[in-house]
Amino acid sequence: MMYETYGTLNADKSNAILICHALSGHHHVAGKYADQPKNTGWWDNMVGAGKPIDTDKFFVIGFNNLGGCHGSTGPVSLNPETGRQYGSDFPLITVQDWVESQARLADRLGIQQFAAIIGGSLGGMQALQWSLAYPERMRHVLAIAAAPRLTAQNIAFNDVARNAILTDPDFHGGNFYQHGVVPTRGLRLARMLGHITYLSDDAMADKFGRLLRNAEFQYNYEIEFEIESYLRYQGDKFAAYFDANTYLLMTKALDYFDPAHDFDGDLNKSFARAKANFLVISFTTDWRFSPERSREIIRPLLHNHRNVSYAEITSAQGHDSFLMENAHYFAVMRNYLDNVAKECGHE
Amino acid sequence: MMYETYGTLNADKSNAILICHALSGHHHVAGKYADQPKNTGWWDNMVGAGKPIDTDKFFVIGFNNLGGCHGSTGPVSLNPETGRQYGSDFPLITVQDWVESQARLADRLGIQQFAAIIGGSLGGMQALQWSLAYPERMRHVLAIAAAPRLTAQNIAFNDVARNAILTDPDFHGGNFYQHGVVPTRGLRLARMLGHITYLSDDAMADKFGRLLRNAEFQYNYEIEFEIESYLRYQGDKFAAYFDANTYLLMTKALDYFDPAHDFDGDLNKSFARAKANFLVISFTTDWRFSPERSREIIRPLLHNHRNVSYAEITSAQGHDSFLMENAHYFAVMRNYLDNVAKECGHE
Repeated sequence: MMYETYGTLNADKSNAILICHALSGHHHVAGKYADQPKNTGWWDNMVGAGKPIDTDKFFVIGFNNLGGCHGSTGPVSLNPETGRQYGSDFPLITVQDWVESQARLADRLGIQQFAAIIGGSLGGMQALQWSLAYPERMRHVLAIAAAPRLTAQNIAFNDVARNAILTDPDFHGGNFYQHGVVPTRGLRLARMLGHITYLSDDAMADKFGRLLRNAEFQYNYEIEFEIESYLRYQGDKFAAYFDANTYLLMTKALDYFDPAHDFDGDLNKSFARAKANFLVISFTTDWRFSPERSREIIRPLLHNHRNVSYAEITSAQGHDSFLMENAHYFAVMRNYLDNVAKECGHE
Repeated sequence: MMYETYGTLNADKSNAILICHALSGHHHVAGKYADQPKNTGWWDNMVGAGKPIDTDKFFVIGFNNLGGCHGSTGPVSLNPETGRQYGSDFPLITVQDWVESQARLADRLGIQQFAAIIGGSLGGMQALQWSLAYPERMRHVLAIAAAPRLTAQNIAFNDVARNAILTDPDFHGGNFYQHGVVPTRGLRLARMLGHITYLSDDAMADKFGRLLRNAEFQYNYEIEFEIESYLRYQGDKFAAYFDANTYLLMTKALDYFDPAHDFDGDLNKSFARAKANFLVISFTTDWRFSPERSREIIRPLLHNHRNVSYAEITSAQGHDSFLMENAHYFAVMRNYLDNVAKECGHE
């Protein structure tokens, strides 16, 4: 399991923060590598010295989930039993599995209790699962732009994206590595579709509207509108580096996650185990995991008399808002975490 | 151009209604064929004797648009110059072209002025275009679940669907007919994606939620949730009968349509030509063409002092609502069209 740390673990190991990543995230959360000056961490605006998740106060851990394609063991790794890449032999993984592996990482680092476990989107689901599987191992859970479980519409989008990959002739049942090809078409479609759900209708209208690529319509199937250009660029970029099997596996983990699965579908019962304090944050124009989905997290927590803070942030950026700088959002994060830092002895 | 009529044209030819179809619609609007008792028209709940679009009072015309795959000349037709199916040689068609061809059909039928031109979704755009291209040729326009032009998000969904078809190796640049194959994978993905946008999040939640196909998760890439089963079924069904080139062409017509394109993007200016009376209808949970998109039609009409009636119908069914039975919706249609019938001499 690939991980990266920032800041210093204090003497009583009480100032550790775990950052759970979403679909295409990884261990490189903040900063730049000395030899890769352009490779900035994916949450560098939020995590660092003096930033809301302040590495002067906290020991912050980023990691790449199992099954990922950024250094942790996954479908692209060599299977020691066969000497070939796992491909379709790599098992499906659940959010529960991920939390188990993250808990073992915490054990290795000697961290018994995190100051906070933080995640956005799919990362927020992992943070929630932590609070259920290991209620004593964190003081705070921050679930941002998350949901307790996917809706039919969420699953539907995932299913279309997966089918694009699964039916790409270059997928070869997941063993495309041996064929020297990549299911580029499928990955590209999956990412284009994903991007539509990450952005709000309004943000797209503001940024692209009906802007044309050329002065006049060409009346062919090439790019006519700037939004098409943007989506195809995002799709191509993603298809060039992301592993198709990892994409499939991560969307399945999203689909499967349901804390109430063993509690007759009742979130009130499932969250009875939770002991942490919670900060839940949603964004007004996020239609992938709308504010209503955050309230689905809050209700069972309140039902169980947990401490919950909630902020619904006005933002035009849709689901992507959780990765973007926003004064209100960052102030909420900073204020909450400043109080968490005080619990660890920071003034 | 394939068309079908219902009811009787009156002596002064004042009771004709034209029904413009949406993406997968066609000429067979209502009723059943004697030899095909299961082949019910796509709007049979709305059109017929005693129904809101009452064929006892009106002479109703359904047609298949040019470029379609239900009998009108389209990419599947034989190109007389080559003796082969048009395929990629078939030109792109705009909403303006469609209205031109529909006007020629009206000429052939001797109809100078329609009592009403009615369309839902893409059909609504054709009805709007009629009011701009031939302001004197109809007394009423009924635009249902429509929009004056696509947003960036609308175009983005179309672009993903088109790319699924265009990049399917079985598409062969549009000339798959000669290869004896069909780009089934692409058509299937396009339709699955389309269906997500036709249904509301709530309707999907009510109908499918997280219902499982089997008693327990299988942890593989087969169908786990009922929503996946539904989408794949819809995708397969569509791919088995719909022409891929027609699908591409129709989504492009949607993208291109913008009545304000030649008016500096100003809908107020473009709708200055319209003379008809308008009934605009939207549905509360339609997020493909939301009620706000209907208001974008209404505002320029009011700006130009046109008669506009508007109904925002409470419905859980999303964009699909325009095809579904709904007491409030049907009452609005019936009452409006009863008044239109009176203008044609019906009591």
